[in-house]
Amino acid sequence: MRNLDEDNITRAVIGAHAKAASSRMREVMTSLVQHLHAFAREIALTEEEWFHGIQFLTEVGHITSDARQEFILLSDTLGLSMLVTALNNKKPHGCTESTVFGPFHIENSPHVELGGDVANGAQGEPCFVRGTIVNLAGHPIPHAELQVWQADAAGNYDVQYADRDVHRARATLVADADGAFHFKSIRAEAYPIPHDGPVGRMLKALGRHPWRPAHLHFMITAPGYERLITHVFREGDRYLDSDAVFGVRSSLIADWVQHPAGVAPDGTPSDVPFNTLSFRFVLNPAPAGESGRRQANSVGWKPRKELET
Amino acid sequence: MRNLDEDNITRAVIGAHAKAASSRMREVMTSLVQHLHAFAREIALTEEEWFHGIQFLTEVGHITSDARQEFILLSDTLGLSMLVTALNNKKPHGCTESTVFGPFHIENSPHVELGGDVANGAQGEPCFVRGTIVNLAGHPIPHAELQVWQADAAGNYDVQYADRDVHRARATLVADADGAFHFKSIRAEAYPIPHDGPVGRMLKALGRHPWRPAHLHFMITAPGYERLITHVFREGDRYLDSDAVFGVRSSLIADWVQHPAGVAPDGTPSDVPFNTLSFRFVLNPAPAGESGRRQANSVGWKPRKELET
Repeated sequence: MRNLDEDNITRAVIGAHAKAASSRMREVMTSLVQHLHAFAREIALTEEEWFHGIQFLTEVGHITSDARQEFILLSDTLGLSMLVTALNNKKPHGCTESTVFGPFHIENSPHVELGGDVANGAQGEPCFVRGTIVNLAGHPIPHAELQVWQADAAGNYDVQYADRDVHRARATLVADADGAFHFKSIRAEAYPIPHDGPVGRMLKALGRHPWRPAHLHFMITAPGYERLITHVFREGDRYLDSDAVFGVRSSLIADWVQHPAGVAPDGTPSDVPFNTLSFRFVLNPAPAGESGRRQANSVGWKPRKELET
Repeated sequence: MRNLDEDNITRAVIGAHAKAASSRMREVMTSLVQHLHAFAREIALTEEEWFHGIQFLTEVGHITSDARQEFILLSDTLGLSMLVTALNNKKPHGCTESTVFGPFHIENSPHVELGGDVANGAQGEPCFVRGTIVNLAGHPIPHAELQVWQADAAGNYDVQYADRDVHRARATLVADADGAFHFKSIRAEAYPIPHDGPVGRMLKALGRHPWRPAHLHFMITAPGYERLITHVFREGDRYLDSDAVFGVRSSLIADWVQHPAGVAPDGTPSDVPFNTLSFRFVLNPAPAGESGRRQANSVGWKPRKELET
């Protein structure tokens, strides 16, 4: 293994992996090395460009923290996240489609009773959300667990505020015996993904905008069904056809109906305009013998008050 | 741009780059996205594996500092660095070959006079190095600048010591009018690249060792010539055929001659055994109109004493 050149180095590197701990590890790294090398050869990567790449990845690593996952943003904006979602969530026609997970999910969001207030102080026009969770036959799935999370009217998730103290606009709920759920939150708005870091610079150099169309995140789990990670997008949003992370699916777009001030769906008077949203989720049965759980990949952030206790 | 699936998402992402700031940026990112997506498709990357990748890159970023460049280690161990070196350093037969730069170069290493002591306290058997710098016709190149750096007998570069205070076993020298240079240093020893981090874990999972054969780094610059970044390897080293970073070239292997205690080449008595090494470097003329300088890509570490001043 001496005198490796551009023609034989790829075979040499792959050959060095003959004793890999698992055949899957060898398979993954063989493909990775082949594509990494083919990329460098195809574009005749210069030493200067290589070093810019090293510096870029270093910056991505250094800005990544418990509250910000720049590598997930990078994967999202290069379409890798949506591709992996597509590869791993092939479902029968009629099931609710999956979309990207995004970097803003938090484990153990606060439990909220049905009908409760998910916003918890997050700013935005009130929005009353209701829906059902059913199987492919249209029968209700009782007591599914829903995690919901969204940005506020300023386009920020709670984790993005330096002075964050409690969870806002995110919660865990449990649907009732008839598969129904409802809660109060705020109207979703389009927002730019964090673009003050290296991924933002990359988007700018690519002539791309950082905006995502307005959406509400859902993660729904129920025994015997595949976990569903998806969004509901707002019909009419100007970014539906240019989502910075390539996540929009027509079947996930719904009307967020705007109502003038008056009596809200929960029977209380609202002196500001409010919205209503309704959506039906259709879960896919888990393959026999599988739990239906998938890998969670949330960031590790906890709000300050939780950290203090 | 809705309803992207595994078959059409790659085209959509590339299409989004139509307004890139430069055609080179578009070219590089088109190839990168194609290979990144092809990799995911080819191995049917699972969501769990994707997240392990995100976590791995995050760890690589977090362990990277001014004194440790884990992304360069990653590039080195996957053969990318040597491939980029090979792609960018095609030279006429007879020129000294290039090899990987490595992550341990430092800008502005201390100037040492010819004949001086480069080790500066680094531990190891004494080694007296001499050589010449010539052009393809064999004529001396006067006053070339040499930067040299190496690990000590324990296998560590100065930057790897937590209690580092001064530069050791690295220096900048200037050859004389006849293209000759000589200095005193220490015998190079084989060493493992830093393997207590994510790259070390990767090597272990791949069944690979982290060792590099003993070598002395050189970076040589002279007006009118291409900058040469290379090593001289020690003949007989057990790792010459399994270098963890794939950098060995037969033409760069030299005898490090061991001598018993006695009179050293500098005329002083040595009461310990010592080594001598001699090497002739042949520089490639720079293309007309180019300075011959290439991108430097050293880490930003400075020894503590320098930081304090």
